[in-house]
Amino acid sequence: MKLYDCQPAPNPRRVRIFIAEKGLEIPTVQVDLINREQHSEAFRQINPFCDVPVLELDDGTCISQVNGICRYIEAAHPEPNLYGTDAKEQGLIAMWDNYAFTQGMSAVADAFRNTAKGFSDHAVVGPRSYAQIPALAERGRSRTQDFMSDLNKYLGEREYLAGERFSAADITAMVTIDFAKWVKIEIPEEHNNLKRWYEAVSSRPSAKA
Amino acid sequence: MKLYDCQPAPNPRRVRIFIAEKGLEIPTVQVDLINREQHSEAFRQINPFCDVPVLELDDGTCISQVNGICRYIEAAHPEPNLYGTDAKEQGLIAMWDNYAFTQGMSAVADAFRNTAKGFSDHAVVGPRSYAQIPALAERGRSRTQDFMSDLNKYLGEREYLAGERFSAADITAMVTIDFAKWVKIEIPEEHNNLKRWYEAVSSRPSAKA
Repeated sequence: MKLYDCQPAPNPRRVRIFIAEKGLEIPTVQVDLINREQHSEAFRQINPFCDVPVLELDDGTCISQVNGICRYIEAAHPEPNLYGTDAKEQGLIAMWDNYAFTQGMSAVADAFRNTAKGFSDHAVVGPRSYAQIPALAERGRSRTQDFMSDLNKYLGEREYLAGERFSAADITAMVTIDFAKWVKIEIPEEHNNLKRWYEAVSSRPSAKA
Repeated sequence: MKLYDCQPAPNPRRVRIFIAEKGLEIPTVQVDLINREQHSEAFRQINPFCDVPVLELDDGTCISQVNGICRYIEAAHPEPNLYGTDAKEQGLIAMWDNYAFTQGMSAVADAFRNTAKGFSDHAVVGPRSYAQIPALAERGRSRTQDFMSDLNKYLGEREYLAGERFSAADITAMVTIDFAKWVKIEIPEEHNNLKRWYEAVSSRPSAKA
């Protein structure tokens, strides 16, 4: 088994943190996103979506998308649990994880990919060429700030994003906060609940992954 | 238990199909999206994200986001299985479901919400006001057509999106194809694999949900 990875990128980091929380060690292969290795014919055979992370199993099966890889790992290595135990907790964690992805991670990605130089003709992840949209980058910045404000409110109501314990949803939200630094957005000083939570999740050993 | 629903909207339909596949009957409450009932103070208490679907459990817990609701239902009613049995199948279904959502459903939503009259100041789902971006609607249209072309290729390699049996990923992709009709994009005549699959999934009794 091996993980196709790219050290600085946010989505592979979500998987590395998940792996670290499980206490697993999976060898990684670095994919050179700067030089578009993900678009090469060789890499398309591994992942036609042309992105990382990808987990290659020992039988050669390649699973991509953060959700795909993490659901595989959760099923193969159930402890410690990160996607919920009973039905209600499973539902709530998937809900908050999806919220953090669609309203947080995707907003930062809009801000970043629609302005960053290296993505001028690849503003959408994947094999195809799409031009950048400056207005979408601006909207992404506003949404990132609004996401932080909303997170601050929700984290005033409970310890972690989906309840009273750390889950997959916290990984998505934490990596989003760090990704936002790429577009120079940091947690505002007055967001005390968000700061309290961010310090707690960032001080877990897995956060170094 | 009840489902906050809106009959014509695509995301609640994904949940209704999932429920039908499970052979369950859950009463629905229609939310008047046209008149912005989802932004009312009363509905914010049910779902602060201000969207449907939402599943309200008998203990009052409200689970939103399609993934949240469907993961709850899968855990509470495991048969027939829609998210995979062993770890590999669970990973592959989550991968293809995420692909269909991010590259399909989200592309159609970009095309629709950034042009439709009723969304002129609400181009992003949720409680906040964001202006429409015409260039994003255009990009959404291109991406929708590219998504159909890619789906056609993948469905030439196997019977259903994630393998040889119907899964949650097929629901997301099928609802995306129907949602695309809202922006006047239909399956091109030459996409024979996609047409074969679409006819198969659309003829399941659950598709009427």
